[in-house]
Amino acid sequence: MLTMQDALLALTRYWTERGCVVVQPYNTEVGAGTLNPATVLRVLGPEPWRVSYVEPSVRPDDARYGENPNRLQTHTQFQVVLKPDPGDPQELYLGSLAALGIDVRAHDVRFVEDNWASPALGAWGLGWEVWLDGLEITQFTYFQQAGGLSLDPVSVEITYGIERIMMALQGVSHFKDIAYAPGISYGEAFGQSEYEMSRYYLDDADVEANRRLFEEYAAEARRMLDARLPVPAHNYVLKCSHAFNVLDARGAISTTERARAFGRMRGLAREVAKLWADRRAELGHPLGIAEVPAAPEPPAEFATVDAPATLLFEIGTEELPPAEVIRTADAVRAAVADKLAATRLAHGDVEVHATPRRIVVLVADVAPRETDTERTARGPRVSAAFDDSGTPTKAAQGFARGQGVDAADLGRVVENGVEHVAVTKTVVGRGAVAVLSGLLAEVVTGLRAEKNMRWNDPALSFSRPVRWLLALLGTTPVPVAVSALASGSVTRVHRTADEPVVAVAGADGYPEFLAGHGVTVSADARRRAIVDRATELAASVGGVVDLTGVLDEVVNLVEWPTPILGSFDPSYLDLPAQILTTVMRKHQRYLPVRAADGTLLPYFVAVANGNVDEDLVRTGNEAVLRARYEDAAFFWRADLRTPLEAMKANLEKLTFADKLGSMADRADRIAALAARLADVVGVADPTLSRAGGLAKFDLGSQMVVELSSLAGFMAREYAVRAGETEAVAQALYDMELPRSAGDDLPSSEVGALLSLADRFDLLAGLFGIGANPTGSSDPFGLRRAALGAVSVLRAFPALREITLTRALTLAAANLDVADAVETAREFAVRRYEQQLLDAGHDHKLVRAVLVHADAPALADEVLVDLTALVDDPAFEVSAAAFGRVRRIVPEGTAASYDPTALTEPAEVALHAAFAAVPKGVVGLAAFVAATSSLAAPIDAFFEEVLVMAEDPAVRAARLGLLAAIRDLAAPVLDWQALG
Amino acid sequence: MLTMQDALLALTRYWTERGCVVVQPYNTEVGAGTLNPATVLRVLGPEPWRVSYVEPSVRPDDARYGENPNRLQTHTQFQVVLKPDPGDPQELYLGSLAALGIDVRAHDVRFVEDNWASPALGAWGLGWEVWLDGLEITQFTYFQQAGGLSLDPVSVEITYGIERIMMALQGVSHFKDIAYAPGISYGEAFGQSEYEMSRYYLDDADVEANRRLFEEYAAEARRMLDARLPVPAHNYVLKCSHAFNVLDARGAISTTERARAFGRMRGLAREVAKLWADRRAELGHPLGIAEVPAAPEPPAEFATVDAPATLLFEIGTEELPPAEVIRTADAVRAAVADKLAATRLAHGDVEVHATPRRIVVLVADVAPRETDTERTARGPRVSAAFDDSGTPTKAAQGFARGQGVDAADLGRVVENGVEHVAVTKTVVGRGAVAVLSGLLAEVVTGLRAEKNMRWNDPALSFSRPVRWLLALLGTTPVPVAVSALASGSVTRVHRTADEPVVAVAGADGYPEFLAGHGVTVSADARRRAIVDRATELAASVGGVVDLTGVLDEVVNLVEWPTPILGSFDPSYLDLPAQILTTVMRKHQRYLPVRAADGTLLPYFVAVANGNVDEDLVRTGNEAVLRARYEDAAFFWRADLRTPLEAMKANLEKLTFADKLGSMADRADRIAALAARLADVVGVADPTLSRAGGLAKFDLGSQMVVELSSLAGFMAREYAVRAGETEAVAQALYDMELPRSAGDDLPSSEVGALLSLADRFDLLAGLFGIGANPTGSSDPFGLRRAALGAVSVLRAFPALREITLTRALTLAAANLDVADAVETAREFAVRRYEQQLLDAGHDHKLVRAVLVHADAPALADEVLVDLTALVDDPAFEVSAAAFGRVRRIVPEGTAASYDPTALTEPAEVALHAAFAAVPKGVVGLAAFVAATSSLAAPIDAFFEEVLVMAEDPAVRAARLGLLAAIRDLAAPVLDWQALG
Repeated sequence: MLTMQDALLALTRYWTERGCVVVQPYNTEVGAGTLNPATVLRVLGPEPWRVSYVEPSVRPDDARYGENPNRLQTHTQFQVVLKPDPGDPQELYLGSLAALGIDVRAHDVRFVEDNWASPALGAWGLGWEVWLDGLEITQFTYFQQAGGLSLDPVSVEITYGIERIMMALQGVSHFKDIAYAPGISYGEAFGQSEYEMSRYYLDDADVEANRRLFEEYAAEARRMLDARLPVPAHNYVLKCSHAFNVLDARGAISTTERARAFGRMRGLAREVAKLWADRRAELGHPLGIAEVPAAPEPPAEFATVDAPATLLFEIGTEELPPAEVIRTADAVRAAVADKLAATRLAHGDVEVHATPRRIVVLVADVAPRETDTERTARGPRVSAAFDDSGTPTKAAQGFARGQGVDAADLGRVVENGVEHVAVTKTVVGRGAVAVLSGLLAEVVTGLRAEKNMRWNDPALSFSRPVRWLLALLGTTPVPVAVSALASGSVTRVHRTADEPVVAVAGADGYPEFLAGHGVTVSADARRRAIVDRATELAASVGGVVDLTGVLDEVVNLVEWPTPILGSFDPSYLDLPAQILTTVMRKHQRYLPVRAADGTLLPYFVAVANGNVDEDLVRTGNEAVLRARYEDAAFFWRADLRTPLEAMKANLEKLTFADKLGSMADRADRIAALAARLADVVGVADPTLSRAGGLAKFDLGSQMVVELSSLAGFMAREYAVRAGETEAVAQALYDMELPRSAGDDLPSSEVGALLSLADRFDLLAGLFGIGANPTGSSDPFGLRRAALGAVSVLRAFPALREITLTRALTLAAANLDVADAVETAREFAVRRYEQQLLDAGHDHKLVRAVLVHADAPALADEVLVDLTALVDDPAFEVSAAAFGRVRRIVPEGTAASYDPTALTEPAEVALHAAFAAVPKGVVGLAAFVAATSSLAAPIDAFFEEVLVMAEDPAVRAARLGLLAAIRDLAAPVLDWQALG
Repeated sequence: MLTMQDALLALTRYWTERGCVVVQPYNTEVGAGTLNPATVLRVLGPEPWRVSYVEPSVRPDDARYGENPNRLQTHTQFQVVLKPDPGDPQELYLGSLAALGIDVRAHDVRFVEDNWASPALGAWGLGWEVWLDGLEITQFTYFQQAGGLSLDPVSVEITYGIERIMMALQGVSHFKDIAYAPGISYGEAFGQSEYEMSRYYLDDADVEANRRLFEEYAAEARRMLDARLPVPAHNYVLKCSHAFNVLDARGAISTTERARAFGRMRGLAREVAKLWADRRAELGHPLGIAEVPAAPEPPAEFATVDAPATLLFEIGTEELPPAEVIRTADAVRAAVADKLAATRLAHGDVEVHATPRRIVVLVADVAPRETDTERTARGPRVSAAFDDSGTPTKAAQGFARGQGVDAADLGRVVENGVEHVAVTKTVVGRGAVAVLSGLLAEVVTGLRAEKNMRWNDPALSFSRPVRWLLALLGTTPVPVAVSALASGSVTRVHRTADEPVVAVAGADGYPEFLAGHGVTVSADARRRAIVDRATELAASVGGVVDLTGVLDEVVNLVEWPTPILGSFDPSYLDLPAQILTTVMRKHQRYLPVRAADGTLLPYFVAVANGNVDEDLVRTGNEAVLRARYEDAAFFWRADLRTPLEAMKANLEKLTFADKLGSMADRADRIAALAARLADVVGVADPTLSRAGGLAKFDLGSQMVVELSSLAGFMAREYAVRAGETEAVAQALYDMELPRSAGDDLPSSEVGALLSLADRFDLLAGLFGIGANPTGSSDPFGLRRAALGAVSVLRAFPALREITLTRALTLAAANLDVADAVETAREFAVRRYEQQLLDAGHDHKLVRAVLVHADAPALADEVLVDLTALVDDPAFEVSAAAFGRVRRIVPEGTAASYDPTALTEPAEVALHAAFAAVPKGVVGLAAFVAATSSLAAPIDAFFEEVLVMAEDPAVRAARLGLLAAIRDLAAPVLDWQALG
């Protein structure tokens, strides 16, 4: 049995043998190995660095008194940094697993997209979590930025979660049972400390003392920065961060305090990073400058081919995120087609396939060379090219010389009716290999993803590193050189294959060739394989596989899909199915299995990658799911034992935000606001007051504390089980809707009122304390809240009396903060505007109806009318007339006038027409109809009358008349916006 | 080349294979690996524990910006704890050196006494520093107490100083040059951090912030103790300690603050320890209870021998401190002789030899058994033993029965003239083996040293562990069982011998047998060997070995003395010889080599132990000395470049004590006080004011900061070189004298005045702030100061006008603290009294002269006179008379009387005799002579006159007369003390 201390020694030895320096854990508390200066400072600047170390990582928030089998306030990370990226870090990593005795061929080891960002550090990177049979055992990141500085070269950071690895390897289900050393369990060695430090972090740490420590540390960090000493400054930033984490675990940090503290720590961390980088430069970079891989030699000449052939071009990558697999296939297909179209190379179909590790381009029947063409160069006019004697002039001779022909051989060409001398040459098409060499290089250079990273290549940037290129025209290698990459005639198949790198003889039949090595290059084929096998497996236990949700992702997570049927203890089926499927899909990417009636069966299908030992992988995945379900079942049972009021009481311990009280205060405000909004629209439903009284109670449940995405859902579940009515339960669920753009909306008016109250309280409160979102940062989710409120208002036209202004004013009345109703309203209006634009409405029409944005449902209706009317010539005339009135009348002009001052016929006629317009017309179409009689008099007025008459009384009357018309039309539309 | 990270891995592997758990360095700053809870908490209580770990140990005080080749603010310890003591920890340790590739046979590996105590932790232990060719590489301690709790079982703590070991193994002379990892030096990896953290600790740490941190940490530790959470409490004690260390390095801690902070930390540490032990007991000691070695089976019967034989008894120990080698040999010699004398076992000479690792007892001609003796039991009187018929009475029969004889066989014995019945039996002597078995066991049990420790033996306690016993009577094994130890017939020779454990055939010729294995058991022989060889080696370079100082110690540091001649660069001879010899003797136990004229030569003799590779050991020792001399030379050169005034200015940065200002303030006070004292005795010497102005300046020199024992000496050296007069230089040197009891005294009056001023300022100041010494603690050295002042006053009778009272009063006048003159005076008087008693003076005489203690030189003279007079019958008579007067006169009686009230002849005569005594007599003898005429009248007075006459006037006159006599005698001696 490999003990935990053996494992740490084995990893240390493995990485030492691969050139890593060993350093010690940092001697102040850190939340992760990343924060050790051996990572976070050393990744900065150009110096090479390879290091490995153990880091006991302290996360006060994860303290559980040692009772939770998987969660510890101090867990052990093993950290590796490779700078620069050695080019094969995944292979090195797999070697380290083998060094731990893990048979990487038998197990399902996967690189699953997981990007990392630490706003407090000003740091981010792209990479994966590594799964061992579904268990996350390592974070693998290409570190892109630290302390706000872009990293060059990029570092590879590998962080092993040692306790999890040991639990899996030793087959124990509680961290305390890990064999730490011969005869000593983890619990025996560290159990007391785990309990006591949990007590400290959760219950006993003095909040005020830790606040003072935070301030002292921040101030000392500041002083050290001023003294230009990055090492002690960093030390104090770490202490600062730990003090913050202690306060957070004690529940003493409000949302606004968090934002402020993060801002402060981020600022310090950025300065530390900058200073460190500067100091290393001043010291002359003692460890030298990392070498950049050199660009390959360009080929001396290109090969030629004689007959049309298939082009095979493969871009080999490290595991792409599933969404990028699809996106990249499309992009490459388009790029290749477009670029080929710009050549004169004849070719057949362009076919592109993609897997997580490769994009394969196959172009049929590529001609051996471009077709030849003729190119004509135009010279001087014939009249200027020959003298009277027909002898070529100097101009003609010069042209001929420039074209490399004899003047006697000059031809003629007519352009715009004028005859010029000219030279026509045949341009011989380039060979296909030469054409493709450059073209394919451009395809690679042009690769872009939603999030792009850099690795050891000096010039490329893509979703994940590009590690190899394979380019064959038939059997002829096409040399493609991109930055430091050069194409070859080999591909890479499974990393754990006997022969992971294989030679490729020719382009034809390449998908079959890959299939022979276990790689299914076609996404459709993979999908079919998964569906067929999963269906078969589900059927074997009398079930049907549920493919919703994750199939697209799974298809693009594997090259060699191997569906495996696993089971779980049927007792977990007592949990709501939503919990079980959320865990399966969101956390594990498993396909649920259902009975014919749709109920869940205690099975799942995991899709492994490759020719794994299925029993081993099944066992591993089952253990992971069991641990997750055990957690969930524990929370479920604990919550069911807890009265709803008791959960609700927990809200008092959740600080919401500075000046906005606790989450309990917020829930009370939501209930009160919902009641006021109900009054506004005359809704009187006892469901509302009961649901309001329970608002947000599930945030105090253990389940939602752990799985926050279940907020609302759990409220409904727990409410029903606690004997509340279905309507109350549903209203509580509805209150959380919509959770994101496009999500379901509340299903009842009561639910809608609660949803609106929730969102307007948030908007009024946070704008009131000045926590306005900025372009890049919206930590409180105010955009989502505003969009949600607008969506609900649009969906419930019956609630249109609840205008933005009214709702925000009522919300603000419950709060003791600055009045920010207008700001918040404007913010919501802008979200509404964007919604309309995103839905494809014409921006002029959108702007025109925004006068009604305070009641979005009304604005929606006006927009419908407007869209119908906009091409009607009569409407156009009216609109032009109202727009013209609006433009001419100065801002602030009163809409009153003395009709007796109007004497000109056109103005008298306009006055009469205006007076005849019926009042109180509702709806755009009706208004347009009612005012259609105004358009002609307005036009006549402008043609015949000078508005700015010399006589002030006349001028005032004319302006007053126009202003009255303006004011008549203004509430209906922003007419000017249509112009 | 073994890199440093290889070395750490090798040690980890070695100790892991020996059952040690590996833990990580602690994640808050610690000053030593001991402070990691894996040591300081785990050594408490009965649970077994074996652990090893790396600990980067932070000592802000050792920060040197990375410039000093041997000193770092963070150095790397490798820590091992073995609990309980495995019985062979030294052998295990040597194995670990071998695991580092150190050839322990070729090198001189030595265990040199070095005891460890951490008052701040309430912890101590006995053990050694381990030397590798003269370089201290490891601290090896039997941990006896922690947190104020006695440890049971005792733990072995082994702390490797990794940087030093690496420097020696790699042959580099600066820590930055250590090959830390392949291609990366220590300096490259950690140099910037070393520099920056030095900056923080020495220059930039905010003092007030760190003071606040200290308080926060202490308060949080207090809270955690109250919450019964020892782990977080310990964590905060460590943070407290680090904050203190930072403040100390910043020079912000005064002597009194230090004492207070230590007291506080000690108190917390004790509570943590107690709480941890209690909590472990409450948890049921999760790791079990350490096993105690069992006592051996007692022998079924003892062997017998037939002829007188030599007894060999060897007590094998781990390396005893040199002083204990001598002391133990004497004690064992006495114990064996005394115990043998209490038996009837005939024997010849008792011979005892000792080395650091063994005490060998050889007793010649031990008889095979004790001589037989007769023992008579007395029964009833004959008169009661037989009835009239001569028949034995019941009494006699009972007696006979009790003695196991027939009543008819009763004999007779006469006692005190009365005849009794009696039984006489022959007691047969016990066999020698049986006698010796018990006797020798008692010798072992009775072993005691100045400082005693416990190890894995449940019952023994001695200077160092006793590891084996060898007992042979001739060739017959004598079974000696002491606690868990049992004797055998084997001994242990050099640990690195091919056969470290060898069988011993017989007692005869044992010293020669040991010599055959390289062990010289006779201290005289070792001394001769060292002197002869060292003389020879010195002669080989034309020199003479200087044996003063360390020879006694060296003789008892080795069993197999191997003097080795080493050399050092002659350029170091430019340094004052005192520095060179101080380093050689005090730090390295080397013998200096001098030329015929006494000047130092650039050589030394180191005495290694065993058959080492002399070249290797020489090289190692030379490197150690070079490093030490390089340090010293660096300081020397730096100091010589510094004006005396600049050094003196540094004193302002040295805080002396709360309310007593800086060391500069103290130096100023010393100068002022010395001037006042000079006024008292009428000394006017410009030397005094110049020397006073420079007082203590060398405390600001780098040399004295590093080698504080050179204070005063360096003042003289630097003063001369700075152009001061010899007299000024000498006075500065004298000021520091005497440094300890028996040390040299100042050589001039000016020096004496400065020395007195120094000491009286200290006494008046520290008593003034209430920092009085206690029975066990005298952190400010007030005892030494008082003894020094008294010694100087005694040595300079010309200064006798400087009384204790006057000097302390003048000193106090310079200070703004409470008046403690009387307390300080009394303290000094008690020291003087003790000096006199220690010198063998009769305690009555000492008490009698203490009336003069304010001027010790005067008291000395009186004591001389008194000692001469005390047996003179005339003095006795006078003394008795004055004593009688003193006793009879009530306290407070005035010494005035009306002579006319005296009428009785005896009182009139006494009055007349008293009146006739000449006044102003100086000196005891003269006083006795002058008052000899009083003795007879006093006696007559008491015989003939009733002092307490009924007439009040008469009574008053009589008492007045006696009081006048009392007052005449009182200033001369405490006459009553003589009674």
